[in-house]
Amino acid sequence: MTKFHGVVPPVVTPLNADFTVDYPSYTRVLEHLIGAGCQGVFVLGSTSEVVFHNEKIRREILEHSVKIVNGRVPVIAGVLDATTDNVIEHARVAKAAGAAAAVVTAPYYTVTSQPEIIDHFRYIKDAVDIPLVAYDIPVCVHAKLARSTVTTLAREGTIIGLKDSSGDDGNFRYALLDLAEHSDFFLMTGSEIVVDNALSMGAHGVVPGLANVDPHGYVRLWDAAQRGDWTAARKEQERLCRLFEIVWVGQNRVSGGASGVGGFKTAMRNLGIIDTNLMPRPRQALNDAEAAKIDAILRSTGLLG
Amino acid sequence: MTKFHGVVPPVVTPLNADFTVDYPSYTRVLEHLIGAGCQGVFVLGSTSEVVFHNEKIRREILEHSVKIVNGRVPVIAGVLDATTDNVIEHARVAKAAGAAAAVVTAPYYTVTSQPEIIDHFRYIKDAVDIPLVAYDIPVCVHAKLARSTVTTLAREGTIIGLKDSSGDDGNFRYALLDLAEHSDFFLMTGSEIVVDNALSMGAHGVVPGLANVDPHGYVRLWDAAQRGDWTAARKEQERLCRLFEIVWVGQNRVSGGASGVGGFKTAMRNLGIIDTNLMPRPRQALNDAEAAKIDAILRSTGLLG
Amino acid sequence: MTKFHGVVPPVVTPLNADFTVDYPSYTRVLEHLIGAGCQGVFVLGSTSEVVFHNEKIRREILEHSVKIVNGRVPVIAGVLDATTDNVIEHARVAKAAGAAAAVVTAPYYTVTSQPEIIDHFRYIKDAVDIPLVAYDIPVCVHAKLARSTVTTLAREGTIIGLKDSSGDDGNFRYALLDLAEHSDFFLMTGSEIVVDNALSMGAHGVVPGLANVDPHGYVRLWDAAQRGDWTAARKEQERLCRLFEIVWVGQNRVSGGASGVGGFKTAMRNLGIIDTNLMPRPRQALNDAEAAKIDAILRSTGLLG
Amino acid sequence: MTKFHGVVPPVVTPLNADFTVDYPSYTRVLEHLIGAGCQGVFVLGSTSEVVFHNEKIRREILEHSVKIVNGRVPVIAGVLDATTDNVIEHARVAKAAGAAAAVVTAPYYTVTSQPEIIDHFRYIKDAVDIPLVAYDIPVCVHAKLARSTVTTLAREGTIIGLKDSSGDDGNFRYALLDLAEHSDFFLMTGSEIVVDNALSMGAHGVVPGLANVDPHGYVRLWDAAQRGDWTAARKEQERLCRLFEIVWVGQNRVSGGASGVGGFKTAMRNLGIIDTNLMPRPRQALNDAEAAKIDAILRSTGLLG
Repeated sequence: MTKFHGVVPPVVTPLNADFTVDYPSYTRVLEHLIGAGCQGVFVLGSTSEVVFHNEKIRREILEHSVKIVNGRVPVIAGVLDATTDNVIEHARVAKAAGAAAAVVTAPYYTVTSQPEIIDHFRYIKDAVDIPLVAYDIPVCVHAKLARSTVTTLAREGTIIGLKDSSGDDGNFRYALLDLAEHSDFFLMTGSEIVVDNALSMGAHGVVPGLANVDPHGYVRLWDAAQRGDWTAARKEQERLCRLFEIVWVGQNRVSGGASGVGGFKTAMRNLGIIDTNLMPRPRQALNDAEAAKIDAILRSTGLLG
Repeated sequence: MTKFHGVVPPVVTPLNADFTVDYPSYTRVLEHLIGAGCQGVFVLGSTSEVVFHNEKIRREILEHSVKIVNGRVPVIAGVLDATTDNVIEHARVAKAAGAAAAVVTAPYYTVTSQPEIIDHFRYIKDAVDIPLVAYDIPVCVHAKLARSTVTTLAREGTIIGLKDSSGDDGNFRYALLDLAEHSDFFLMTGSEIVVDNALSMGAHGVVPGLANVDPHGYVRLWDAAQRGDWTAARKEQERLCRLFEIVWVGQNRVSGGASGVGGFKTAMRNLGIIDTNLMPRPRQALNDAEAAKIDAILRSTGLLG
Repeated sequence: MTKFHGVVPPVVTPLNADFTVDYPSYTRVLEHLIGAGCQGVFVLGSTSEVVFHNEKIRREILEHSVKIVNGRVPVIAGVLDATTDNVIEHARVAKAAGAAAAVVTAPYYTVTSQPEIIDHFRYIKDAVDIPLVAYDIPVCVHAKLARSTVTTLAREGTIIGLKDSSGDDGNFRYALLDLAEHSDFFLMTGSEIVVDNALSMGAHGVVPGLANVDPHGYVRLWDAAQRGDWTAARKEQERLCRLFEIVWVGQNRVSGGASGVGGFKTAMRNLGIIDTNLMPRPRQALNDAEAAKIDAILRSTGLLG
Repeated sequence: MTKFHGVVPPVVTPLNADFTVDYPSYTRVLEHLIGAGCQGVFVLGSTSEVVFHNEKIRREILEHSVKIVNGRVPVIAGVLDATTDNVIEHARVAKAAGAAAAVVTAPYYTVTSQPEIIDHFRYIKDAVDIPLVAYDIPVCVHAKLARSTVTTLAREGTIIGLKDSSGDDGNFRYALLDLAEHSDFFLMTGSEIVVDNALSMGAHGVVPGLANVDPHGYVRLWDAAQRGDWTAARKEQERLCRLFEIVWVGQNRVSGGASGVGGFKTAMRNLGIIDTNLMPRPRQALNDAEAAKIDAILRSTGLLG
């Protein structure tokens, strides 16, 4: 088992009423996740709404996370930016703050080719002495990390792992097969709803946003998979699929992004983990009617009495 | 005629061999454009490779531009970022630096809805007292500014203009028709190759990256259109279309983005306007063989003796 | 001027209440178009809802059209099908029925490459002795005819013309420039709303679905362009743009396809040209409320008293 | 277990040198599949290159299949066409020929909405008394069957099953969960490479094109899943993933479609099952160098000595 494995939730960033980061709530989220048995945390990812925060706030969030986690589990940090040199700046901050690894997407806004993506990762690796994890998230970046891009970077040691949020499970399987002999390389799925499949295929970990709401469920799913009890894993996954329906409650009123993270935050607020369900502008929070629907889902999936 | 009109090139950002901004070359570019009769300059846009530069460098570029231009023409500044509050920070810098207007895209990386895009512009307008220009560039942002989004923001005064780089000339025409009675609102096309059409439809200006290479050509095109000489306008445009083929010289080797801006920079270097054809990482510069092909195009279109 | 030029409307296919083709109405449409001065007709295209009709009905429609038109203008026939050999069968029917040319898209349903598209046209040309027109309609076919595909096929004589419904006016301009010296090759735009631009760039004709509703308008636009009166052309085009808004009246209730052709058919019914506004299943006809909105547009654009 | 379940390969259509259907080879394919233990066959699907064949040939293929299969397993027939009434004609033929069910996609070429897609299936159901299976294949049809479209049609009895070739395993899981209580409804995956996952989630069958090449492998995979031996299932699937690499051997020379079906046909020819590796025009057959690479894959995966 590599250093990075298991359930590694992408931590949501709770906000105060004035849209500043609510650190007491943030601390509670971290304790909630670690207390449930999560094996790592991923801060400053898409679910953390990282691109809404400037450099200073990103640094504060990361430093706060490292301090609170205090070595209990690895802290992996997103260093997302549109272009290479800006990512390098974030990666330096991540290293200085004590992150165990830096998570890097392909460039965005600009249109890039796979050779340019490969160079992008190499330049970052050369510039900063921190382990790099490739983050494949075409829905945001609008480029897919090709199978050969991932294997090239993995085999030469530029990246130590992959977080696959592409939804392309067939391609993910080929990455697992191609890199099976690289025992130090880890592959994690960003899926919430086919985690049992990913683990059955050999994935080393899972990074589900929904684990912010129900970390115990994902830890049970992970544990079942580790002991080869695929029936239990599937049953837990199916309950979590029903819970995941919270991400669509707001979809007729707000964008998919706001409905998704807003669903997580609203559930966490309703469960008493964080204080508000606010998101950075221009995302609008879910309203009371939507929150009531989320409560109903929390009840039907056993999270609310 | 509104304050903003005519040929307003998106200024390329020349680099030194160490990838820092080459300000002497930058100055020559500005003089080249103003000397040719361009009626404005757009700095820190996509052609400027703005997303490759951090806040500090962006501020320097803008301050340098304002200083060199020195009021001879308006300086419009891109304030591009993925999310609302980060755009607001850039917009404050732009105002402080003396930009005449700030150019704003829809949010990117995150997936947004049209109502969120409308809110995005309103929040920025509320926060910073600088005229806003909407920038429609779906190839980078992966969202199109809907016709009703543009007209809503225009009619309520949130935006004072539109730079349309969507390539959807039919939709652009409807924006022109819808806002025809708003005499202060200006609409500019980002096209290089159908500028005569845009002007014939009533566009107030044009923001062609290719004008970095041949500003005189676009000024002649603009002037022909102003006097209603569409035959001359078309003929000039057709020559510029042949010149525009420089953007595809590198396309079999590098990405479209690198081939495009790389084509501009290589032509400008070959014409003696700037010192290198370098682009920020991970973009690779065009090579000697490609530069020779660009020279051939410059000669056949009358720019090189 | 080549044999094919001017306003060549894609003829709508009026239906009876039992969804059979309403030939008396069809005849009235043809007379309406020819009487207005249209220089040709295009039957069995997308606006004709060709893919809803089987081989037998397609043949009947084409034979009826050739009989009614009776040589007054050329009849161009769509021979649309997903694959090469099926297109060849339709092309043989078109030749036998007396069509002046056959209009061919890239293959659809299957995913094809540009070399395969080139071979597709060559196989059809080899099999049937009828002039071929390439039809670029990526919104239906989901493949764009590349600039080099069109020029290759044109220069070798496989195709005699292009109908461009891609909305990519820049690429259309390059096709016009590339093939300017091929005086027999004709290029037509499928646009309704930027026809003045297409003609100004040198297009030889226009194939607007909206001409079913207002052929006189497009003929006036064509005539103005021929005499170089671009001010008149633009003014006529702008009125037609306002008329074109009929295609969006139903868009909140039915699909874009049904709203578009349904808008044309409803306007034509309201103007007394055809008897019903029905479309083949599963398309639903526009309803009374939508028809009333279309009447309002017909009145405001001068077509209804 | 419903009537339709297990391994149901989409049967390739072997061709003679003159591009007519090679029925002796076709018979061998059917015997190859049934002899290996496949529980059904799906004829006239995408892998069958159905859209390349006209009505007459489709009918012959189907009648031949029903005759050869002779009731040993169910014969499911694709009735693919772009629009409702044409599908109805094919469905009548399928019924008359003795197909056990008809497989129907959303309309293509035309742009449709989900309500239109629902109507499309209802009209077909009303017109022809044959069980309908929905076929979700957005890569060809360019529309995804929405989760609610499938559940609506399933619950009202319009469709009796789903063949999911969308690659969206999360959505497929929700379909399985939503329809779990409908014990007569069956859900099949079109995947070749994550079949173990699909079966673990509860899928009732699998329709892999690759089973034409190695039906025994998919039957072993199915059997392992039925007895809950997920380790064996995964191991078999991983071997099949390595075999599936034959579909990419031609991809640098021909289109993805030709490379995929061409890979199947070339492997089957090399294994002595069919006589040629030809595909309908404009698809080009794989060449000798590509066939040699396919042999190497066949050897490394145990299919060739």
